[in-house]
Amino acid sequence: MPKSENQSDGRSRIIIENVQPVVDGGFYPAKRVIGERVDVTASIFTDGHDHIRASLFYKKEINAQWIELPLRHISNDEWIASFQVEEKGNYFFTIHAWIDHFETWYDGFKKKAAAQLELKVELMEGAAFLRRLVPANSELKTIAEKLTDQSKYDAAIALVLGERFAEIVNQNPLKENVTKLDAECKIVVELAKANFSSWYEFFPRSSSLESGKHGTFKDCQKLLPRIASMGFDVIYFPPIHPIGKINRKGKNNTTKAEKGEVGSPWAVGSDEGGHKSILPSLGSLYDFKNLIAEAKRLGIDIAMDIAFQCAPDHPYVKEHPEWFVTRPDGSIQYAENPPKKYQDIYPFNFECVWEELRSVFFYWIDQGIKIFRVDNPHTKPIPFWQWVMAEVKKKDPDIIFLSEAFTRPKIMASLAKVGFTQSYTYFTWRVTKSEITEYMNELVNTSSRNFFRPNFWPNTPDILPFHLHHKNDNIFILRFALAATLSSNYGVYGPVYEFYENAPFQGKEEYDNSEKYEIRHYDWKRTYRMTDIMTIINQARRENKALQSTWNIQFCSINNDNIIAYLKCTDDLLNIILVVANLDTQNNQSGFLQLPKAKLKLGDKINLKVHDLITHEHFTWTQEWNFVEVDPNKMPFHLFKLTIEESKM
Amino acid sequence: MPKSENQSDGRSRIIIENVQPVVDGGFYPAKRVIGERVDVTASIFTDGHDHIRASLFYKKEINAQWIELPLRHISNDEWIASFQVEEKGNYFFTIHAWIDHFETWYDGFKKKAAAQLELKVELMEGAAFLRRLVPANSELKTIAEKLTDQSKYDAAIALVLGERFAEIVNQNPLKENVTKLDAECKIVVELAKANFSSWYEFFPRSSSLESGKHGTFKDCQKLLPRIASMGFDVIYFPPIHPIGKINRKGKNNTTKAEKGEVGSPWAVGSDEGGHKSILPSLGSLYDFKNLIAEAKRLGIDIAMDIAFQCAPDHPYVKEHPEWFVTRPDGSIQYAENPPKKYQDIYPFNFECVWEELRSVFFYWIDQGIKIFRVDNPHTKPIPFWQWVMAEVKKKDPDIIFLSEAFTRPKIMASLAKVGFTQSYTYFTWRVTKSEITEYMNELVNTSSRNFFRPNFWPNTPDILPFHLHHKNDNIFILRFALAATLSSNYGVYGPVYEFYENAPFQGKEEYDNSEKYEIRHYDWKRTYRMTDIMTIINQARRENKALQSTWNIQFCSINNDNIIAYLKCTDDLLNIILVVANLDTQNNQSGFLQLPKAKLKLGDKINLKVHDLITHEHFTWTQEWNFVEVDPNKMPFHLFKLTIEESKM
Repeated sequence: MPKSENQSDGRSRIIIENVQPVVDGGFYPAKRVIGERVDVTASIFTDGHDHIRASLFYKKEINAQWIELPLRHISNDEWIASFQVEEKGNYFFTIHAWIDHFETWYDGFKKKAAAQLELKVELMEGAAFLRRLVPANSELKTIAEKLTDQSKYDAAIALVLGERFAEIVNQNPLKENVTKLDAECKIVVELAKANFSSWYEFFPRSSSLESGKHGTFKDCQKLLPRIASMGFDVIYFPPIHPIGKINRKGKNNTTKAEKGEVGSPWAVGSDEGGHKSILPSLGSLYDFKNLIAEAKRLGIDIAMDIAFQCAPDHPYVKEHPEWFVTRPDGSIQYAENPPKKYQDIYPFNFECVWEELRSVFFYWIDQGIKIFRVDNPHTKPIPFWQWVMAEVKKKDPDIIFLSEAFTRPKIMASLAKVGFTQSYTYFTWRVTKSEITEYMNELVNTSSRNFFRPNFWPNTPDILPFHLHHKNDNIFILRFALAATLSSNYGVYGPVYEFYENAPFQGKEEYDNSEKYEIRHYDWKRTYRMTDIMTIINQARRENKALQSTWNIQFCSINNDNIIAYLKCTDDLLNIILVVANLDTQNNQSGFLQLPKAKLKLGDKINLKVHDLITHEHFTWTQEWNFVEVDPNKMPFHLFKLTIEESKM
Repeated sequence: MPKSENQSDGRSRIIIENVQPVVDGGFYPAKRVIGERVDVTASIFTDGHDHIRASLFYKKEINAQWIELPLRHISNDEWIASFQVEEKGNYFFTIHAWIDHFETWYDGFKKKAAAQLELKVELMEGAAFLRRLVPANSELKTIAEKLTDQSKYDAAIALVLGERFAEIVNQNPLKENVTKLDAECKIVVELAKANFSSWYEFFPRSSSLESGKHGTFKDCQKLLPRIASMGFDVIYFPPIHPIGKINRKGKNNTTKAEKGEVGSPWAVGSDEGGHKSILPSLGSLYDFKNLIAEAKRLGIDIAMDIAFQCAPDHPYVKEHPEWFVTRPDGSIQYAENPPKKYQDIYPFNFECVWEELRSVFFYWIDQGIKIFRVDNPHTKPIPFWQWVMAEVKKKDPDIIFLSEAFTRPKIMASLAKVGFTQSYTYFTWRVTKSEITEYMNELVNTSSRNFFRPNFWPNTPDILPFHLHHKNDNIFILRFALAATLSSNYGVYGPVYEFYENAPFQGKEEYDNSEKYEIRHYDWKRTYRMTDIMTIINQARRENKALQSTWNIQFCSINNDNIIAYLKCTDDLLNIILVVANLDTQNNQSGFLQLPKAKLKLGDKINLKVHDLITHEHFTWTQEWNFVEVDPNKMPFHLFKLTIEESKM
């Protein structure tokens, strides 16, 4: 908890507390990305009625020069100052505050003058302040002399009450006995992509245009133009390493694979290699590097999956049995969640394998990888992640880590605090208006905002959520639109979603014939209604800065619980997006939506141009409450761009 | 913010965070009184599914032995352990947590046994754990041997699943790779009186039974039996020092006193002496010490007023002009709040007077004073209070300080954090049901609870609140009952309240003919309806432990916003008080009140004896919702004592 120092000499009388943004009282850094504004707030107060001034000091990197900004009082002893972070790296800030006796005197002087009190001594005091301020300043010296010229009392009063004197007071803070915050608060500033990214996941082995063939990186390369034209900027592959042959899983997660079955890519390693190798059927390292380079050319990063676990035939098992737990019978401990056994997976013994795992990250970074999606980080020690991510950032500060932890809230938060750039979320299961609103408020309007960057996924290879089971394309479109407009980071397990796959395995939240255990064939040449919507929304995200932040959301009142409406706008209000979505994907719904007048700085005369970015319809709104209607069979949501027109009054 | 250490060796895998009770992340100590329970809570979690155990360590004084208590998991990674503080002084606590691999193994074993899996290797693992636990324990050794006796596999399984084995697991935590909280959190434990006190304020100069005579300490002594029989345990006097004669204030705060006017006791000091002297008209130091001793004998502490400011003729002004601010014309700076001037008061220059002011406290402590009510602490530097109270506590840890700061919330909080035992509050202006409920929740259910002990006053010599202006005795009785039952510390500016004084000065929240500027004559021999109610309520407070805490309040639902109802009970439910008050002091009000069944651990059969401690009526409640009625003209509130009867089922 950053606090002001207690200087017991009676002169440093100010308390500075409740400083934001900090995470766990400064134990972890707060996070921002390049171009974001940092609002530093603090409670600053002192005894009595003296005037306080306070400065924010911030700097880029620990050895840089401090930049000083005045904090201003908002209300109830809360102060604020803001600055923009323009470079990646570590920023630091701290706060100084002091009592400005000159300003206190000036304020008292004005009140006494208004009450027509005798002010002779006050003028002498004023002159003394001026001489203390900048002794060498000739203007201030002259004024000081005039104030004490007893023969020109009225002129002296007029001088103090004049405009120039107000400027002098304002521009010359009398900075004495400064109270200093006893901490330098750290902000980690990352690439803009940490906060704004659109992920498309597919299994490279399902990339072949030819049915029944194992896809290769070369096939993937052929899909790049399709995915690029849809506007995605991250392609995420499940693990690309050799797949364990011992205890290999078969179709629909059966415990024994039939001959020829390809197994789960998350069972990493075989006699063909381990975490630093590539499954030969996918191609060579050369192919992979070509793919990375070609994707890069199209503005796409390839995100790699990091699954720190081994198949029984992973080379590590023979070469380094000490990296695993050995049971009393000499066998290696497989994964289990009693009474369930996962005998195709050996977990690492995290008491001794840290350096090797760091080398895995380093290896792939050397091949050109910039983004890692980390599989189940919550089943590995949190201190390990803190260490390894710090090590990686030392090598390359641009690396992005996505935490795939669908677990209890405190653990998800903790992983984000120790350094994960982005995190999977509960969005996948937040369906009703109140669920979505509450969750967004938790993410955006609590301390979470300073460390947890959500990445919203309507589905994953592990999760076909119940609300999509056997449902038509309306809800797929709705959930996609919500993910991509609520959160500036979002992703989709692409092909099955694009093609509306809705069949669960045995009624569970798993896909039937899950691609995790078999190769799929997709008709990559086709496009669907969803393909177009993905394209349009991604384009809107690129073109509208308001959609490039998660933190600027404001929900709008609407008299229909089936409709959720939210506004996103840039600080300058030059870009305003309004999403109006119908959560009832069967029926037409309508209602009256209230514009947040304060947020939009709207006066009594409203003149708002409304442009639907999907249908290209245009409207004009002149009221605070406006009728909206959403027919899910046409389009389950509106994506409005609002423009505030100059009032013609 | 106390956090667990980050031990980067891969074995210490637990996170401990969000530890309570702490104030500002441990920057200030939390407060408790003797006999209170301390609930220590923390978020404790780790990766994966391993079983966690956690211990609370606490000790009295820094060099004592730690006492270890197990924490238990509540839900969602929140843990708790509680202990009672039985002595005054500083307590410390910290938390250790570790993964118990033995318990993890045991839990898995039971699940696997239930699924009838092969358990040979598990038995070997169990034996190894037993040998690691307490190698010298012969019972454990024998069991370990039995587990690995291959010829008796079924017996071995039965042994692990048996009762004795469960006990062994429970009693033998396998404490390895312990994660330790990186802080020792401090709790200051004070006298019970810090949390439970009943204050009666009067001006000693108005204590004479004879009209027109200046009261003396000897007169005060004659009033002691009256006040003691009413059940008060603190008598608080406005300052008893010589009163300034220069610029003395007259009746109703006029700037010039007429000859013979007595002035305001807060204008401290004259040629008769200063902060260590007594106004001669009140008597001698000997009289004062006698009064303190006699009060003590009756269970009453005399609370002294500390007003750190001087009249212009205070001896300090001549002897130590450096303790004041001198203006350019050589005059001493008087108090002001421009354009208002308070020329009867010189504020100290707090840059240099700390030691002398400490000596004022020390002097009166040497005369027998244990309680100080501090006048306007918010106009003196907060670091001064932090220092001087710590100094005083070194001399006598039993001293109680009441902060008279009616100012902005953060400053009131800050004064409490730096050491004030009790604080005046906004209760004086909280009138409606929602105002009272919200305020109590703020005091009791936020971090405030750990440092801010409220003292509720329905009036003070400075405040006749608007809602009492020209009102009848019902509202006086109501506000008294609320103060004395909502808060375990409360006080009243006694005689004017007892006698229902309701006339304001010029419509302001000031008393007309305020006793601050003149001597009053009270008919101390009379008692009023209010006198009786004060007596009964104070008796109820003494006899019912539930009323001796502010922290145990629970508001009850009732379908009438004119009635406020709240329950206070001891943890063991052996003492339960229910207050039902009618905020409409004109009309009879009634409604249905819901008993908080969970809190009272009531089942479906309810059998509750209800005894009205004022009217001595008796009822039996057998329902969750019960009819209540309050006729303000009989009594504006019910003070019920509830007794849970054994169900006769």
